[in-house]
Amino acid sequence: MDKAQQDALKKAAGIEAAKLVEDGMIAGLGTGSTVRFLVDELGRRVQEEGLRFTGVTTSRRTQEQAEGYGITIVDVDDVDRIDVTIDGADEVDRNFNGIKGGGAALLWEKIVATNSDKIVWIVDESKVVDTIGAFPLPVEVIPFGAGHVIKRFEDRGYKPVLRKTADGKEVRTDENNFVVDLHLGRIDHPQDLAEDLINTVGVVEHGLFLNMVDTVIIGDPHGPRILSNSNK
Amino acid sequence: MDKAQQDALKKAAGIEAAKLVEDGMIAGLGTGSTVRFLVDELGRRVQEEGLRFTGVTTSRRTQEQAEGYGITIVDVDDVDRIDVTIDGADEVDRNFNGIKGGGAALLWEKIVATNSDKIVWIVDESKVVDTIGAFPLPVEVIPFGAGHVIKRFEDRGYKPVLRKTADGKEVRTDENNFVVDLHLGRIDHPQDLAEDLINTVGVVEHGLFLNMVDTVIIGDPHGPRILSNSNK
Repeated sequence: MDKAQQDALKKAAGIEAAKLVEDGMIAGLGTGSTVRFLVDELGRRVQEEGLRFTGVTTSRRTQEQAEGYGITIVDVDDVDRIDVTIDGADEVDRNFNGIKGGGAALLWEKIVATNSDKIVWIVDESKVVDTIGAFPLPVEVIPFGAGHVIKRFEDRGYKPVLRKTADGKEVRTDENNFVVDLHLGRIDHPQDLAEDLINTVGVVEHGLFLNMVDTVIIGDPHGPRILSNSNK
Repeated sequence: MDKAQQDALKKAAGIEAAKLVEDGMIAGLGTGSTVRFLVDELGRRVQEEGLRFTGVTTSRRTQEQAEGYGITIVDVDDVDRIDVTIDGADEVDRNFNGIKGGGAALLWEKIVATNSDKIVWIVDESKVVDTIGAFPLPVEVIPFGAGHVIKRFEDRGYKPVLRKTADGKEVRTDENNFVVDLHLGRIDHPQDLAEDLINTVGVVEHGLFLNMVDTVIIGDPHGPRILSNSNK
């Protein structure tokens, strides 16, 4: 599949997901190439159909794109609750366990998701996997003592790599922390791994989103497919 | 007990703890009024007795004090392992469970402690309690979405108070995060509370140090008392 075809599928998923946003709602808007199509479609509905809703974003990029369409964006702390959050994902399995944070925004994404009544992920088919872990798992780590955290991950066989920019500097998150990517290959026991990571002193958050998503919308050449999580 | 008497006890505990630092060691140096006496004594030994050791500090304040005595201070990531870390504590019970972080440096303190072969706390008698929790438990929280974390703490009966400076601004930690103090009164199940806190999205770290300390040195009018933790 070439990029144009993949973009067409992402766009179809984004348009499908945009239907979930209704007048008066508070909607969480994620980050990434698929979410970009979602925001374009929401912007079209705002301008052509008079849709009125309030957005909460997980990155400045999405905020700017949404505000360009006249969508009101507020801070997560200015709302009691988010009705629905629509975001991308880097991997998701059939048990609705996923990995997010390829874009280093996992902490804000998880905070917004935690405060949402409904979570929807829009992905292309390539993100749907039998077992997560081929995508490197991002972990946000405090810089102070990060070397010891990385050493501990190595000792546990997690194959950690400190994420760096093209010119060799450590990538910094919005909180000025490091991102360590764990090249695990496959994650057979995601719950155990999540517990180990969150209990490691120096770890702020990790990119495992376990059984948090309600609906996955998959771009498909035959039209968007929808997976509903009945176990949440 | 007046302040001069209390200071005398703190000083005695600090002098006792300083004996644990030997030539060639890497020693973690904490923060606070009792640690100040410890560093004074270590400085005296460096200057009068030719003691040579390397320090790792949990605050810039201690770093400056130590360097003033000619003690070499290195970054925690520049050492493989810390031989002994000596720090204060805000409360400690007979099971060696404690609260730290009154000074908002709990994250660095916990990172240094985690990488130490031996942990020693120096306290005055007033810090030794039957049940921890009268001292407000500090929790370091990401500013993004902090309102929701505080709301969650309220719902759980944790009596959270966002820590502010005298002029009404949020206190910021070294990582630019907020500190939320939980006014629990007493903590009957510290392990359960620790798990709940660390699994709350938006919480970076908390001030519960459970069964981490090896030795508690207590300033006492009859001479320093030493409690050794045999269950660690």
